[in-house]
Amino acid sequence: MTMALSLQEWMQSQAQHVESMLLRHLPARTPSTNAAPQASLDTLHTAMHYAVLDGGKRIRPLLVYAVAPLSATAPLQAFDHAAVAVELIHAYSLVHDDLPCMDNDILRRGKPTVHVRFGEALALLAGDALQTLAFDVLSQTPLPPAQVVTLLQTLAQASGAAGMCGGQAIDLGSVGSQLERATLESMHCLKTGALLRASVRLGAICADLNAAQQTSLDVYASALGLAFQVVDDILDVEADTATLGKTAGKDAAQEKPTYVSLLGLSAAKTLASALREEGRTALQTLAQDLPNTERLAQLLDYVVQRTH
Amino acid sequence: MTMALSLQEWMQSQAQHVESMLLRHLPARTPSTNAAPQASLDTLHTAMHYAVLDGGKRIRPLLVYAVAPLSATAPLQAFDHAAVAVELIHAYSLVHDDLPCMDNDILRRGKPTVHVRFGEALALLAGDALQTLAFDVLSQTPLPPAQVVTLLQTLAQASGAAGMCGGQAIDLGSVGSQLERATLESMHCLKTGALLRASVRLGAICADLNAAQQTSLDVYASALGLAFQVVDDILDVEADTATLGKTAGKDAAQEKPTYVSLLGLSAAKTLASALREEGRTALQTLAQDLPNTERLAQLLDYVVQRTH
Repeated sequence: MTMALSLQEWMQSQAQHVESMLLRHLPARTPSTNAAPQASLDTLHTAMHYAVLDGGKRIRPLLVYAVAPLSATAPLQAFDHAAVAVELIHAYSLVHDDLPCMDNDILRRGKPTVHVRFGEALALLAGDALQTLAFDVLSQTPLPPAQVVTLLQTLAQASGAAGMCGGQAIDLGSVGSQLERATLESMHCLKTGALLRASVRLGAICADLNAAQQTSLDVYASALGLAFQVVDDILDVEADTATLGKTAGKDAAQEKPTYVSLLGLSAAKTLASALREEGRTALQTLAQDLPNTERLAQLLDYVVQRTH
Repeated sequence: MTMALSLQEWMQSQAQHVESMLLRHLPARTPSTNAAPQASLDTLHTAMHYAVLDGGKRIRPLLVYAVAPLSATAPLQAFDHAAVAVELIHAYSLVHDDLPCMDNDILRRGKPTVHVRFGEALALLAGDALQTLAFDVLSQTPLPPAQVVTLLQTLAQASGAAGMCGGQAIDLGSVGSQLERATLESMHCLKTGALLRASVRLGAICADLNAAQQTSLDVYASALGLAFQVVDDILDVEADTATLGKTAGKDAAQEKPTYVSLLGLSAAKTLASALREEGRTALQTLAQDLPNTERLAQLLDYVVQRTH
């Protein structure tokens, strides 16, 4: 957690750490004996491992961990539970999003998607079980019960109909239609923004920050969440499939509304920079009160400057 | 909650009560303005209402409420939250179970299934959001936080890979294969038993029962859960589609192993009776310590004697 590590080194070490925490909380794989019911359960567990491990930038866990230095006293294990829970929600949403009835995507993080590898029924089940596991892990956070309940409410509200699932419903209804910028923003605010904001908020609850501090962090997280999506849209146009690890140009091909299709490439880039400024300003407010906001600032830079 | 009501009357009044509680906790429907994003969100909310309201025997909420008379002091509203949460988990599992990649069923409770009515993508999303809502509602239970955390852990563990989802994975792997009785039992123990047991246990946590009392109740709930499945298998053979409100004879047609296919009809009926005795004995143990176990006894009778 020391700033002696460069952002790159810190991201790498935290990503390794969250990988081991995810592995600890996933159901253990028991090499198949070919005897039911163990073989079927092992297949489910294998699909859950496949969906979660060895993948992604782990940006949500990183946001949780980036809040940890703001508190000198909060137990670090609490952040582990929050980081694992939010990543499990993200992983389940990807598995279900990739299904044929949704985005019908066959490639994710450079590997065949879960339903391509394990079949649709098992992908559906694995996603369901990953969502459940997120709440299971979060309910075991080593904090006073009142804080644990707040963590659970925060994650549930960010993930459900008023959050991520709601955003996906708007996305589903928007294919082939020309959205207003306000509608596009409210879709992304729910679809990806809610969980990114929740990541920061879960960290803030673990750190037991006060209401004013949480508000500043939330302004930061909202700006970061929107910037994340704007940059995603830019990368969908500018990067190639190999770099992205998922199919590039897919949004345009599906006539999905994006910031690039709505604003043009140049204005989308200007927007991303403006959002970075907004997030930085919020952190400066926070820094008057709390030290050690540097990782949060670096993650914001990373989100805006990333190339995949 | 008074015993002056017959079982029939009590079931009806509790089912009406849980219906109003479900409605209170589901996202509000806002008549569509045809403007995105509200129209898309309303479609999601409508699908969630359709999946949950006006349906089913509400056996899981009834089990939660049947525990309430065992405590003179527990707040009744706590049981409402537990009853709603467990029914939302049940409803989400039915929506996903009915999808083409799983059971591919078009009829549920006498109505077209959610994906037939709203499309597969929305059914997937509505199920996901219903699961999330279950944990959201449970996290708001008006009890001391330590009890709320225990409720959440109990529901998560009963619903996930070590519970309901695990049972569905075993079910998925068992189609067309000849299962041993032990395997069939372990499948049902997870697939339907875990959530039925959790219903009773959630009630016991709300009632703040001690460990010995919870153990007796768990023996009761395990017997009831297994009896429920055995009777389901019997009804799949003996009842017709109109009475069941779902496709009868489906298990046999899909070559799914059932208690009837494994034991024969007569032995399956004997097993159901034996399980009733087992549950009654557990309640008698409990009744030495606590009064008002009558509703639990009646529900056990109902589960074994029901005709649909």
